[in-house]
Amino acid sequence: MFELNLNDITPAQFLAEYWQKKPLLIKGGFKNFQDPISPDELAGLAGEEDIESRIVSKQNGVWDLETGPFEDFDEFGDRGWTLLVQAVDHWHPDCAALIEPFRFIPNWRIDDLMVSFSTEDGGVGPHLDQYDVFIIQGLGRRHWRVGMPDSSLQQHCPHPRLLQVTPFKDCIDVITEPGDILYIPPGCPHDGISLEPSLNYSVGFRAPAQKDLVTGLADHLIDHELTGLRFTDAGRSVPESVGAISDQDLAQVQQMLRAMIDDKDFTSQWFGTYISHAKHELDSTEPDPHYQHDEIAEYLDEGSVLTKLGGLRTLYYQSSPDADIQLFINGERYLLPTTEKAAVLKLTEQISLSMDDGKFFAEDEGRLALLTSLINKGYWYFTE
Amino acid sequence: MFELNLNDITPAQFLAEYWQKKPLLIKGGFKNFQDPISPDELAGLAGEEDIESRIVSKQNGVWDLETGPFEDFDEFGDRGWTLLVQAVDHWHPDCAALIEPFRFIPNWRIDDLMVSFSTEDGGVGPHLDQYDVFIIQGLGRRHWRVGMPDSSLQQHCPHPRLLQVTPFKDCIDVITEPGDILYIPPGCPHDGISLEPSLNYSVGFRAPAQKDLVTGLADHLIDHELTGLRFTDAGRSVPESVGAISDQDLAQVQQMLRAMIDDKDFTSQWFGTYISHAKHELDSTEPDPHYQHDEIAEYLDEGSVLTKLGGLRTLYYQSSPDADIQLFINGERYLLPTTEKAAVLKLTEQISLSMDDGKFFAEDEGRLALLTSLINKGYWYFTE
Ligand SMILES: O=C(O)CCC(=O)C(=O)O
Ligand SMILES: O=C(O)CCC(=O)C(=O)O
Ligand SMILES: [Co+2]
Ligand SMILES: [Co+2]
Repeated sequence: MFELNLNDITPAQFLAEYWQKKPLLIKGGFKNFQDPISPDELAGLAGEEDIESRIVSKQNGVWDLETGPFEDFDEFGDRGWTLLVQAVDHWHPDCAALIEPFRFIPNWRIDDLMVSFSTEDGGVGPHLDQYDVFIIQGLGRRHWRVGMPDSSLQQHCPHPRLLQVTPFKDCIDVITEPGDILYIPPGCPHDGISLEPSLNYSVGFRAPAQKDLVTGLADHLIDHELTGLRFTDAGRSVPESVGAISDQDLAQVQQMLRAMIDDKDFTSQWFGTYISHAKHELDSTEPDPHYQHDEIAEYLDEGSVLTKLGGLRTLYYQSSPDADIQLFINGERYLLPTTEKAAVLKLTEQISLSMDDGKFFAEDEGRLALLTSLINKGYWYFTE
Repeated sequence: MFELNLNDITPAQFLAEYWQKKPLLIKGGFKNFQDPISPDELAGLAGEEDIESRIVSKQNGVWDLETGPFEDFDEFGDRGWTLLVQAVDHWHPDCAALIEPFRFIPNWRIDDLMVSFSTEDGGVGPHLDQYDVFIIQGLGRRHWRVGMPDSSLQQHCPHPRLLQVTPFKDCIDVITEPGDILYIPPGCPHDGISLEPSLNYSVGFRAPAQKDLVTGLADHLIDHELTGLRFTDAGRSVPESVGAISDQDLAQVQQMLRAMIDDKDFTSQWFGTYISHAKHELDSTEPDPHYQHDEIAEYLDEGSVLTKLGGLRTLYYQSSPDADIQLFINGERYLLPTTEKAAVLKLTEQISLSMDDGKFFAEDEGRLALLTSLINKGYWYFTE
């Protein structure tokens, strides 16, 4: 396990002073940092069809971007390029472990782990992101500069799929070494240029925009064939103008939408479903044949240990301490009585279920049934 | 023009007492009714690729449904079937005129005109609809029965695409004759069986459900590339449980949605755009080459008359008497100063622009430009 060292501040102080406000360099954030992946292994992932990867290069002053899968890297030479692989936590358990120290931010806000390998002089260029990120320096060193948000900065595309930003004034200028961490809030310009072959790990966050929420809600209504109430206007009077949309009609349209949104029970249902859906593919394999409850009970009794699939999004919502709990796992929703809170916490807060946890699940029929179905979806798998 | 005769009540009384509340038989609603279309012409429309048509039949007790286009009707025999053609107002100006008498209901609520031809014993079977409808009897006679909404009624499918309802108690039982009109609110069971070859005209309405509004809003945000504000949580505290979606986070999600909906200016924009979009294809032909402003001015000066394309949805919204006017035409939005109110009324309330109207449009450069672009889209066309 990786142990995060915020130096002289606590997570609470970090959240109060830096989170979403200003960038922070955490020198030696991970002591004696050991890379969970090698450049060769990363190159192997970039060769897979199902894994999203790209190479950003600058050769003779010309920016280029190619998307994977990549078979070999010879054409790129030995300097001036970066390979970026998305959602490595979905495919590489040791990399997934790098997200864990940052769980003083709730699960639903965490997106994925991107890993990049840069050659000397490689980098994606100065740019802005819309989301918070922790960038961890692994192998090698990189020259990172980070600035504060600045509305005078102009964005431009040196390549149709590369959005960069004009030169910016930095507030952090550092050569990051293995274990150093940069925290960068949304909208802060940043630029990292590799001094030598180097690995960077980006723990990225997720923050829905109004449009994402509306489309998420629309998809939920469509998927669940929920039509809702229909506009009604009994008692309408003869309109002054037949062409007009009256204020009264418009107010009813607003009211129909507001009624859906004000319903906290409904909002928690679709939002939990929506936000628990992973953006990238999961590496799940359904056991074949499926396990029976009693087989699972037997394994748990024997002391087997279960690991949660990398990238699986596990959340819950409980409106009050004695309300039922809505458990959300990868876009699916399970309603559990409040007495199952301990089980919900084990499933959502932990990345594995210990021998004791296993016994706890085997103890109760409903709990065992839930765990069995999660194992049969490939969401938890036996590792011991 | 068709003149509606509500017998002993006014449109205001109709709206107060019947609209969306209970069915009404308007005996002789149109005096000396002349069918605007013949069965042969209707059959011709049903032969077109672009026009939605279907035939519902019951032969030897077996219900069937076939969709058009139809080349010939011999296989159906001479009894027990109905041909239904959607949105005939889009293709047949004389039929479109049948909608006009019902414009004591605002434009945005009106959907389209469906026309049906039934042979002896033909009908679609007892059923419920979600929308209000005025059914006008043309040629021939039909035995219509209409009931009140009744939650004990069961719906079933005698054919995969036919939704019918169990026998119902009627409150109207009539043999409709040419010019008779039935008003049927949503949810009222109805069943019409033809006594002889007959034509029925259904003026249908439109009433968005919550789902339609949400998907309409989502489409608007996507089409206009509006991302809106993103979730922010500066000052977040360390969560009690990382698995939980907190009440505070959920409240912010609700607040983000509410902010969009409470914005009346924004809601009127997307709702007007959404609801002015016709559900069925329009029969528009762009003039080729496009007209120039001065050509149009010349025609108008010479006294030319313009007709609005059948089925074109023309609406406006004005939040207060001196606010700008949002004019919505077939999913497009035009912002006009309040001084153009007269022009907006002519475009939205009338189905044609007279000689005098034409001169009024030719008088002002902006007005002429707007009309020219509408003519160049094929939305208004010269008829004299
Ligand atoms: O790893 C890199 O080169 C880019 C990292 C970055 O800019 C980010 O994660 O936001
Ligand atoms: O014309 C028909 O046969 C069916 C009419 C009808 O049921 C309707 O318009 O709702
Ligand atoms: Co970045
Ligand atoms: Co009907």
